[in-house]
Amino acid sequence: SGLVLVKNPHLDLMEEDVLYHLDLGTKTHNLPAMFGDIKFVCVGGSPNRMRAFAQFMQRELGLAGAGEDVADICAGSDRYAMYRAGPVLSISHGMGIPSISIMLHELIKLLHHAKCRDVTIIRIGTSGGLGIEAGSVVITDTAVDSSFQPRFEQVVLDDVVVRSTELDKDLAEELLACSRDIPDFPTLIGHTMCTYDFYEGQGRLDGALCSFSSEKKLEYLRRAYEAGVRNIEMESTAFAALCGLCGLKGESCHFHLL
Amino acid sequence: SGLVLVKNPHLDLMEEDVLYHLDLGTKTHNLPAMFGDIKFVCVGGSPNRMRAFAQFMQRELGLAGAGEDVADICAGSDRYAMYRAGPVLSISHGMGIPSISIMLHELIKLLHHAKCRDVTIIRIGTSGGLGIEAGSVVITDTAVDSSFQPRFEQVVLDDVVVRSTELDKDLAEELLACSRDIPDFPTLIGHTMCTYDFYEGQGRLDGALCSFSSEKKLEYLRRAYEAGVRNIEMESTAFAALCGLCGLKGESCHFHLL
Repeated sequence: SGLVLVKNPHLDLMEEDVLYHLDLGTKTHNLPAMFGDIKFVCVGGSPNRMRAFAQFMQRELGLAGAGEDVADICAGSDRYAMYRAGPVLSISHGMGIPSISIMLHELIKLLHHAKCRDVTIIRIGTSGGLGIEAGSVVITDTAVDSSFQPRFEQVVLDDVVVRSTELDKDLAEELLACSRDIPDFPTLIGHTMCTYDFYEGQGRLDGALCSFSSEKKLEYLRRAYEAGVRNIEMESTAFAALCGLCGLKGESCHFHLL
Repeated sequence: SGLVLVKNPHLDLMEEDVLYHLDLGTKTHNLPAMFGDIKFVCVGGSPNRMRAFAQFMQRELGLAGAGEDVADICAGSDRYAMYRAGPVLSISHGMGIPSISIMLHELIKLLHHAKCRDVTIIRIGTSGGLGIEAGSVVITDTAVDSSFQPRFEQVVLDDVVVRSTELDKDLAEELLACSRDIPDFPTLIGHTMCTYDFYEGQGRLDGALCSFSSEKKLEYLRRAYEAGVRNIEMESTAFAALCGLCGLKGESCHFHLL
């Protein structure tokens, strides 16, 4: 049917669903009217960047109001920022798995309540590259954990639920095809490693509060490269797992800046 | 000596330390002049709340400019917000362990570069209470994970480093003594459980994308209460572990709203 799947039977029995961190709800807002025609959702860490992206989409799509400021739909909350440009929703998710996880829970319930159909969700983030040129874009085929495994472990009460982290291969190929029109950004498909920390988790010798050897770091990164990892960031496994759980067509693309 | 301990020998060999997510650095800013006299650091999730807290401290301390707006020291970054009121620094950390972890890494290096002495750091956050009255404040003696253990597991490259999550007991008692002057807020000392997710991790039947039984949830929460847990949030184990690692006198207090 193209609708998102929410495997929680309690949800439709509730009188009201408050999407607390988005400052939206089923009683306070007409979600189908506000969001029913959304076809694309783009998510990224920084609120300023997601505002700039919405403004960019407004110009690209030739929409009325292009060049003007866009309103933050979640202005009543300082947890996340949300903007729309025609059928495209642009939302920030902060940094790290717990932060993106809260946002995706509320976003997916929003898409469910709004009865959106055939939605494509794309994470557009920055990341650290591994053995690739600066300025490259990595399109993730599979998100992997720090042991290079394609899995996301979620503690639900005291059970550990393991979920798959494969993303939509057709969408990855489609995005790669688009990239051929933009010669400035070398683009490749590869595995993306997701960590729980920026400094110690990614072995930043210069930034961590503890010490470790540079030999160990190089050996670890070499093994990651051999396992197919081309970049490292902090949200992709949770993103892939929740897209898979809810039947959302999802892809994660990362720009390797330095 | 009262200085913070940074157990990374690389740090003092670096020509420049860029505290990227705070938009501060050792070459671009005179950190000892800006922060050398800081004695208290208060951290919390929401940027707006941390601005309001800085304004509150400005009034409480009778500082010049009280009642006026305060400037965001990290205005060049939209990742975190930082304000100061006299010897008190007020900083947001976003939601979840990875987000607070990045901020604490950069904050602790900031305190190190600024040569701050005898700093006390207090997390002031909201949380869900467990078997306690709404409106209560929980002062954490020990942060525990979802198995009720006083530990924080940090993946450093592919090693799992386990750190203690005990907080400063004397400071907890001191804060509890302060609470006796404020009759409106019932205050207690207890364990705080820290999860990696707000919905599934905390067993929110009404909010999760998957399903689980309410019996299992009640049984789990009963066991948590018996283990001494009085509230649940998403940052305390990482906070306690990093304070312990760097010799910072730290405490975590949480307001149970509902």
